[in-house]
Amino acid sequence: MELSLNTATVRKQWSLAQIIDGCARHGIRGISPWRDQVAQMGLSQARKSIREKNLVVTGLCRGGFFTAKHWRDDNLRAIEEAHELGARSLVLVVGGLPDGSKDLPGARRRVEDGIAAILPEAKKAGVPLAIEPLHPMQAAERACVNTLEQALDLCDLFQEGVGVAVDVYHVWWDPKLHAQVQRAGRRILGYHICDWLVPTRDLLNDRGMMGDGVIDLASIRSSVKQAGYAGFQEVEIFSERWWARDPDEVLEICKARSAG
Amino acid sequence: MELSLNTATVRKQWSLAQIIDGCARHGIRGISPWRDQVAQMGLSQARKSIREKNLVVTGLCRGGFFTAKHWRDDNLRAIEEAHELGARSLVLVVGGLPDGSKDLPGARRRVEDGIAAILPEAKKAGVPLAIEPLHPMQAAERACVNTLEQALDLCDLFQEGVGVAVDVYHVWWDPKLHAQVQRAGRRILGYHICDWLVPTRDLLNDRGMMGDGVIDLASIRSSVKQAGYAGFQEVEIFSERWWARDPDEVLEICKARSAG
Repeated sequence: MELSLNTATVRKQWSLAQIIDGCARHGIRGISPWRDQVAQMGLSQARKSIREKNLVVTGLCRGGFFTAKHWRDDNLRAIEEAHELGARSLVLVVGGLPDGSKDLPGARRRVEDGIAAILPEAKKAGVPLAIEPLHPMQAAERACVNTLEQALDLCDLFQEGVGVAVDVYHVWWDPKLHAQVQRAGRRILGYHICDWLVPTRDLLNDRGMMGDGVIDLASIRSSVKQAGYAGFQEVEIFSERWWARDPDEVLEICKARSAG
Repeated sequence: MELSLNTATVRKQWSLAQIIDGCARHGIRGISPWRDQVAQMGLSQARKSIREKNLVVTGLCRGGFFTAKHWRDDNLRAIEEAHELGARSLVLVVGGLPDGSKDLPGARRRVEDGIAAILPEAKKAGVPLAIEPLHPMQAAERACVNTLEQALDLCDLFQEGVGVAVDVYHVWWDPKLHAQVQRAGRRILGYHICDWLVPTRDLLNDRGMMGDGVIDLASIRSSVKQAGYAGFQEVEIFSERWWARDPDEVLEICKARSAG
């Protein structure tokens, strides 16, 4: 699989402009930027630089957060930006429990309604929506869609225009993973890699570099390919350890550890 | 539901002897001790004290760890101790990945084989085995059974003598929770409560007191009752914060927060 770099991986060392240059310099052909970095650089400048370097925008991070205020406007802007950048999908981190709420089924209904509300605009803009199930430990704060099965049940409601992003960090533990990857088939819009460290010291920012943890990446990649996914594998590592390293070195290690 | 105290909740402040006295003093009628505490007190002394105070041993923690060395002998001893204490079940924390392994399906097969191996002894001793699905964030280190559905699929293989322990901390996020609780029915051998804090600062020892987090305890309790569970609710809080508090106060708060 070709390599894409999720820009979060070196966000503390480099600006988006530097990351775009870095990808080109290291022969990484895909990029998946975060919207705050795009805004900082300026949308048209980001678009221009990415095109000049001939990078594929494998995804834009992120839309979603349907349980927060201003979710509609925010998602419509995200769709526009994804369209402008020619992103292959807009990644949806769907949002967790609203402040003060314990109503998880209610939050899940709001996610369903939110996707229904923005889908027509996404289709018009030619931007596929990629629902990303997040690890159950993120259910309260970030995403109440927590398994691939649940994400695909959502997709089934909408059919066209909606798929999933499979991030190994979030789904590696799932006893139904391989069955659900096959069920997903061509609805897999993104495939994200990193590793699960033992021990894991933080719920958010202690992801591992591929090979440093316990995820059977070869097996998941093979399953994803078998399902018909022919896109990039995107390295996405949130880690205080890797944010403290030389970013050129980080990119070289990403390349070496994702080969095969 | 009547209250039981999992002894881990005040393990840093009190010995098992003190916990037994504490339960009696505070009118808590159930207790679920850990084996290391029982060993420290002495099995026959623990048994004697628990009987004198007329406490119900709602579970013994724990058997399992089928992917570790000496799992067979260790589980056979655990079954004996559960029998001696008259425990209503032996809780199985099934174990995670063996050292150096990334083979989660393989670990899961070892769990299945392990349960099959000890079940005849458990039945002979009249000790029901309660498979406890652990939160997916514990898949590598503690238990590769991570959803109630998966635990019940295991139960289905064995039929008699095996059920589940439902701990809200591990399963609250699951979109299939209520359906699987109903499927479990009378196979629910234990019901454990605490709360999920936002934010959660540690993967192991940052559980919350009931009411301090986002778990909809009323809804889960109602579902568990509807499934036919008529046992105790057992407070099990691993928390550096609560281990630093006066244990008598902790027990009073447990009582107040679990009423209803």
